[in-house]
Amino acid sequence: MALRDDQIGGQLIGSGWLAGQGEEFLSEPASGAARRFTSATSAEVDGAARAAEDAFAAFAATTAQHRARFLDRIAAEMRAREERITVIACAETGLPEARIRAEFARTTGQLRLFAQHALTRGWLDERHDPGLPTRIPPRPDLRLIQRPVGPVAVFAASNFPLAFSVAGGDTASALAVGCPVIVKAHQAHLATSEIVADAVDTARKAERLPPGTFALLQSATRMTGTALVTHPLVRAVGFTGSTVGGRALFDLCAARPEPIPFYGELGSVNPLFVLRGAGLRRGAEIARAWATSLTQGAGQFCTKPGLVILPAGEIAERFLQVAVEALAETPSQCMLSDTIAQGFRVSIARLEEKSGVVTGHNTVAKEGRDMGPVLLRTTADAFLADPEMAEEAFGPGGLAITVADPEEAVALARSLSGQLTATVHGDPEDQAEARALFGILERKAGRLIWNGFPTGVEVADAMVHGGPFPASTNFGHTSVGTLSIRRWLRPACYQDIPSGLTPVR
Amino acid sequence: MALRDDQIGGQLIGSGWLAGQGEEFLSEPASGAARRFTSATSAEVDGAARAAEDAFAAFAATTAQHRARFLDRIAAEMRAREERITVIACAETGLPEARIRAEFARTTGQLRLFAQHALTRGWLDERHDPGLPTRIPPRPDLRLIQRPVGPVAVFAASNFPLAFSVAGGDTASALAVGCPVIVKAHQAHLATSEIVADAVDTARKAERLPPGTFALLQSATRMTGTALVTHPLVRAVGFTGSTVGGRALFDLCAARPEPIPFYGELGSVNPLFVLRGAGLRRGAEIARAWATSLTQGAGQFCTKPGLVILPAGEIAERFLQVAVEALAETPSQCMLSDTIAQGFRVSIARLEEKSGVVTGHNTVAKEGRDMGPVLLRTTADAFLADPEMAEEAFGPGGLAITVADPEEAVALARSLSGQLTATVHGDPEDQAEARALFGILERKAGRLIWNGFPTGVEVADAMVHGGPFPASTNFGHTSVGTLSIRRWLRPACYQDIPSGLTPVR
Repeated sequence: MALRDDQIGGQLIGSGWLAGQGEEFLSEPASGAARRFTSATSAEVDGAARAAEDAFAAFAATTAQHRARFLDRIAAEMRAREERITVIACAETGLPEARIRAEFARTTGQLRLFAQHALTRGWLDERHDPGLPTRIPPRPDLRLIQRPVGPVAVFAASNFPLAFSVAGGDTASALAVGCPVIVKAHQAHLATSEIVADAVDTARKAERLPPGTFALLQSATRMTGTALVTHPLVRAVGFTGSTVGGRALFDLCAARPEPIPFYGELGSVNPLFVLRGAGLRRGAEIARAWATSLTQGAGQFCTKPGLVILPAGEIAERFLQVAVEALAETPSQCMLSDTIAQGFRVSIARLEEKSGVVTGHNTVAKEGRDMGPVLLRTTADAFLADPEMAEEAFGPGGLAITVADPEEAVALARSLSGQLTATVHGDPEDQAEARALFGILERKAGRLIWNGFPTGVEVADAMVHGGPFPASTNFGHTSVGTLSIRRWLRPACYQDIPSGLTPVR
Repeated sequence: MALRDDQIGGQLIGSGWLAGQGEEFLSEPASGAARRFTSATSAEVDGAARAAEDAFAAFAATTAQHRARFLDRIAAEMRAREERITVIACAETGLPEARIRAEFARTTGQLRLFAQHALTRGWLDERHDPGLPTRIPPRPDLRLIQRPVGPVAVFAASNFPLAFSVAGGDTASALAVGCPVIVKAHQAHLATSEIVADAVDTARKAERLPPGTFALLQSATRMTGTALVTHPLVRAVGFTGSTVGGRALFDLCAARPEPIPFYGELGSVNPLFVLRGAGLRRGAEIARAWATSLTQGAGQFCTKPGLVILPAGEIAERFLQVAVEALAETPSQCMLSDTIAQGFRVSIARLEEKSGVVTGHNTVAKEGRDMGPVLLRTTADAFLADPEMAEEAFGPGGLAITVADPEEAVALARSLSGQLTATVHGDPEDQAEARALFGILERKAGRLIWNGFPTGVEVADAMVHGGPFPASTNFGHTSVGTLSIRRWLRPACYQDIPSGLTPVR
């Protein structure tokens, strides 16, 4: 049956929308009426996985041209629903319309990028060692290409209701190579997920692709995700979310009788170092830009520069004064969900309780989803003594750390765990210190930035959105950019196989 | 101190050989006197890991030219020791001299191949998205390259004392990109490992590379491997060995506070399907070649075609008669160790006890390391009913399975777990059946073979030595061929970073 306004709440599995069998729950939109959804049951997860497996052979055998048309058509079907998507996403997430429209453009652009990338064939990694029949011993003819791994599970992110969600980067990259996708929607934007899934499903039908090519599961219980990642027919998982939740799913994937890769993008505090020369000359400017980057999207970006490291003394004091002024002018913003707002309050309260942490500015709301920014400060000594201070606080808050000298900055860099990004602000006179820091930070982060800000993750060929744990569970991969396609591929070698017997591609 | 004939038995850590601190044990060579070794202690593992980490920055910053010279020089230092290596390896493993000499050539060839591959730069995956400062929003300049992951642990294989051991493929590929390597030698060839390690160490000194670039650990206890894969400074692991041992180490890597990738090549039975047309016309020829492939190197190849699937009736009976005749002429061969010989005896005895399994030929020795070949047979029905029959028996033994019709062959293919290889023998009239089988086998194996045999793994650009679990723990990678270099790399993105601040390469 087709999706109608009055049929919201079930799962998209196989050939259409099913009235959910599982437990009912209500969405918690930032504005407007709550809607009724049902959590996908184990049987529904099993149905989605079987449908995906049934679809795999035919979908994997489609041409790149066909899959590119499919991705482009998903974008077109989304555009046909743009006004409804925008209204619903704004109501559910509380994000401003301009942000949702920008994210919408990014999402359709991403679909277009992967459609084009599918056609390049570079990702196929084609290699050929021609047979050497007269060599002793003879060498057979060997051809290598990358092949899709099979059904892929995608866990949508809370903080990107479109770009890292139902038809986001994980889905686009997996569909581009011929992997069926089962999306587990995020609870923060259930109705948005449903309408985007309807766009994908409409595009799938128009492109005459098998029913199991795409599925959407809604849920309010952990059981659904557990059933999904432990299902024997699921071959790989993409995830964007919290360190605790991601680690639990990673552990389940690793403990399977047949382990599968779990590509999780988890937590990151994205340190930003201000060096002496830059701090002296451009401290106020950097402070203002940092405050903007910190509070953008209510601080709910994976790449929020949550730690700023400042030379103690006049540079730090001036920087913090300007930052506090900028934050004081930053209005409170609606957070993505009550749970996320509450999590932020708890993180900040835990930091504020620590001896050695001083509050510079705090407009955190005691309750509700509207949240003002917060700035805390501490010293490198205190920070190095307490690993908890390096944990992510997901929301509009930052921790400034003052360092007595460049050696302390280096020690602090060394103490950090894996990060999505690491940034250094320096002037020409800071080069030696910058080089020393980059030498350490390069081991810690997927992306290094000079005199810039980490928010705004460009979807491009050279982007890396990943890094050592806990930034990601697979430091060898990225979840943004065209290289992210590699997560859904496995190399296969064809020895002396005539062309009629090798896979269509 | 330099390695002398009378100083065998310790660990190579940092700047030289250490008299081992751990428990003493004796090697068990196939011929000649046992030698005394000591198991590396946790403290020694820690020393090796710290030395590797200390070496990493400088080694990662070497030019590809420098690392290529290092690999070439390792090959040269091995050649300077070729006679001693050959004598010692033959005595330890019981493998014939011709085999050791061929493997020696393969090992030095592999070092040369990775030296050349390091120079190609293709593995660097260089990508550049130039800045677009006038775009709204502006795009920063983004450069991506692959960087070495850090210290790598390599577990040497039992069955390739040179090619998958101290200076084998894992070590060569990791050194090629700038990762220091800590090798855990295999107990089946301890003295061989030591002399090859001396060759690597001599080359390292000649190339003025830091002491921690390479280490060798000997051990007779599981503790050493556990300490190695759980050491916080070890960033990735390469392993070739048993499913049980590999899975235990994989689980340890996944359970670390900061999980690391474990690239394990574990068990495989490498099914070989003979289709009707080929069986009718060339059955005897295929049977003889299969018996040769089965018993090569005493059946101790990861790619031994341990399962042969035959059309029931005249084709199967003639095939098996010829195979038994060929095996009857195959002399017994010395196995790699007492443990491996005993493991093979247990595997075969377990299979023979099963109802539905018939012994066609059995010259398995009741004791000792000299082992004759064995051929068992069963039906698809019996095989499909008992998953244990699909487990690897590491040694000169094969299981023939008769199928009533092509559908049963397809069902059997579907039942298989992950494999390194899958082979089909067919004539032109068998194409439809072959296509159906390859469609299934493509999901099961890293390498597909038409009218050939899986033993003899070519070290080439297009080789894949891997596959779904348990063939490997990472179906996205290969442990043989130039693509294996990707295991030791992680992508890094440099945003707006001036060339003086990016890593040397």
